[in-house]
Amino acid sequence: MKFIDGGVTAAEGFIAGGMYCGIRHNRSKPDLAMIYSQVPCAAAAVYTSNLVKGAPIQVTKRNLKNGRAQAVICNSGNANTCNFDGEEKAWRMCEIAGKALNIPAEDVVVASTGVIGQVLPIEPVEQAAPQLAASLSREGSAAAARAIMTTDTVEKEVAVELELGGKTVRLGGIAKGSGMIHPNMGTMLCFLTTDAAVAGPALDQAIRLAVRDTFNMVSIDGDTSTNDTLAILANGMAGNELLTESSADYPAFCEALKGLCARLARMLAKDGEGATKLLVGKVTGAETDEIARTVAKSVICSSLVKAAMFGADANWGRVLCAIGYAGVEVDVNRVDVSFTSRAGTIPVCRGGAGIAFSEDEAKRILTEDEVDINVELHAGSGSAEAYGCDLTYDYVKINGDYRT
Amino acid sequence: MKFIDGGVTAAEGFIAGGMYCGIRHNRSKPDLAMIYSQVPCAAAAVYTSNLVKGAPIQVTKRNLKNGRAQAVICNSGNANTCNFDGEEKAWRMCEIAGKALNIPAEDVVVASTGVIGQVLPIEPVEQAAPQLAASLSREGSAAAARAIMTTDTVEKEVAVELELGGKTVRLGGIAKGSGMIHPNMGTMLCFLTTDAAVAGPALDQAIRLAVRDTFNMVSIDGDTSTNDTLAILANGMAGNELLTESSADYPAFCEALKGLCARLARMLAKDGEGATKLLVGKVTGAETDEIARTVAKSVICSSLVKAAMFGADANWGRVLCAIGYAGVEVDVNRVDVSFTSRAGTIPVCRGGAGIAFSEDEAKRILTEDEVDINVELHAGSGSAEAYGCDLTYDYVKINGDYRT
Repeated sequence: MKFIDGGVTAAEGFIAGGMYCGIRHNRSKPDLAMIYSQVPCAAAAVYTSNLVKGAPIQVTKRNLKNGRAQAVICNSGNANTCNFDGEEKAWRMCEIAGKALNIPAEDVVVASTGVIGQVLPIEPVEQAAPQLAASLSREGSAAAARAIMTTDTVEKEVAVELELGGKTVRLGGIAKGSGMIHPNMGTMLCFLTTDAAVAGPALDQAIRLAVRDTFNMVSIDGDTSTNDTLAILANGMAGNELLTESSADYPAFCEALKGLCARLARMLAKDGEGATKLLVGKVTGAETDEIARTVAKSVICSSLVKAAMFGADANWGRVLCAIGYAGVEVDVNRVDVSFTSRAGTIPVCRGGAGIAFSEDEAKRILTEDEVDINVELHAGSGSAEAYGCDLTYDYVKINGDYRT
Repeated sequence: MKFIDGGVTAAEGFIAGGMYCGIRHNRSKPDLAMIYSQVPCAAAAVYTSNLVKGAPIQVTKRNLKNGRAQAVICNSGNANTCNFDGEEKAWRMCEIAGKALNIPAEDVVVASTGVIGQVLPIEPVEQAAPQLAASLSREGSAAAARAIMTTDTVEKEVAVELELGGKTVRLGGIAKGSGMIHPNMGTMLCFLTTDAAVAGPALDQAIRLAVRDTFNMVSIDGDTSTNDTLAILANGMAGNELLTESSADYPAFCEALKGLCARLARMLAKDGEGATKLLVGKVTGAETDEIARTVAKSVICSSLVKAAMFGADANWGRVLCAIGYAGVEVDVNRVDVSFTSRAGTIPVCRGGAGIAFSEDEAKRILTEDEVDINVELHAGSGSAEAYGCDLTYDYVKINGDYRT
């Protein structure tokens, strides 16, 4: 598997685009994205576990019941959630996209992101759709990625390529994150495409596995959004033999999908609201992978750890504290902690107690923009990574006055 | 029951004090507190659920096995946790206090708060203890309250008085909070005293019930501390008939204790690190009290709700979002939300959807320093209150560089 350019349109047969349609007041920020496949696709999706679910999720769930889709429409600037006519409007978006692309409305994945609890104006979507549909291209991935952004500061697109049974297949995707990010079986918004031929159940299983170890290991602020949606479309145009869960090539496909998702997950975490650095919680030596995942996530979710990392302060006691309240059985007297960045590695705690270290060196290591918090539990071979970011003045600023 | 002055020395027979001993560098901040009862007391305590437990907790647990204590010693500036000789030092503190007060070391409750993972210097305690012991007085509650503060900005002391079987009994206490506050069967640090005569099991049961609805409903940053300890000493000097769980007066005593704890819990939340306002999550109409407690705590724990409240932004969608991921079954389509402060009440959401409201009026209401977030679930008669605070620039500032 290798990383390539092209994002959500790297795979054969996919085109995409984005534009400003008028849902937002700020005309310089695009707010409507579309992705389209030349042929109908096998499709699967995972969604937020929040009981409050965005109206688009209800509609997308219905549309994907037959495991088939051909396009995605997504707006930013309004979550179309907690209002009175959300489902009706979400379905209208499918009809509008279907008409503009000349496909059934039932084959459209719809998603929205932005403020919760406001009525979605549908006219801007209606008026812009034909023009947007006509503009879709193989070069449109970045435009689509930008149009789904909210407080994100950079667009997030990734693609990979691998050989499956002698055929070259590609997978790509775009995602948006930034705030209200603590995904649970889904992520904020992520649309993936592939030209591999994959059977529905195999596609479904592949994204569930990939999401468990990637997007579900991201937390920016502990708030599980109402609109988390990750959808994947597989159009089969690479010409490979149809992948099922028993295919010899299936593990390679799953691995590539996980690699793609991991890269996007890191990008989400690094661009968390107000973040100045990516934090990777790396837990090893756990009794099980599940325990490792729980501990890793507890560490990168701790407000105190996050604030200490913002200040490049090697306050490892807070790491131990977060391990202790993670809710899983851990022998805290065996825990080692160290910090790693491109400036080096510094051990700070051994066997649950502090060890002497140079504060200057720690400061130098923690000042980098990607920091690993390494936790060795000495209890087995389970491991996990979780992705987060520091807690900064800008997080407070952005969220103290998001709506106005 | 009525609130009175006197704090932890309001009850007959208790004296207290605090001073600077030298654990901290800053000589203007006292760092050693003592509380003493003229006669031995029935005693009970609850502690953090964090697996990483401060060394003083291990020693206090041992000392309270016989349900008896006569004094408290507590330092701030160093948590005496996650180091190699913590228990030895904690026991030394009991010996030092015991010697200074002429009581057995086993009858001393010991606690520490401050930075985790550093070795506690015992010499300052050793040198200061005789002078501190000699200075204890009925007027010393505030001095003791100040000496246990870390990033707290105000000392926290409360006392109440009630009649039990014709005798006037008093309960009082001091507490400290500020950061790493998400108590779970205990709170950061809280020492309570009463001159009521209470049997050990009844005292234990009374504080467990009180804590469940008060301190365990506080969250400042979601981080459960390693050193949470709440201890109560009952010396019986009020002369009432010994209270047991079947005494007619027992419910009144429990109610007074809960009222005392609730007042301290609100004080903790309002003085949360960096806080500009107290947030009270008030949930009504839940199927059970347990569901109400879970929902109330989820709302006041949400970083996004907290940041919105800092900005006086009526972003109720975040309240709904936090209800949705609380992890309990709630029909989100029946939820009403309103905000209340001394400036008035404003409904913002009905039946899970937004309703029209004046942003100006909302801003005026949310600008006050105590704000209730009211959530009506329309599913039963369960209710609960949770106590938190807003998330501010100062929280980040304080915690970005706490150690240095």
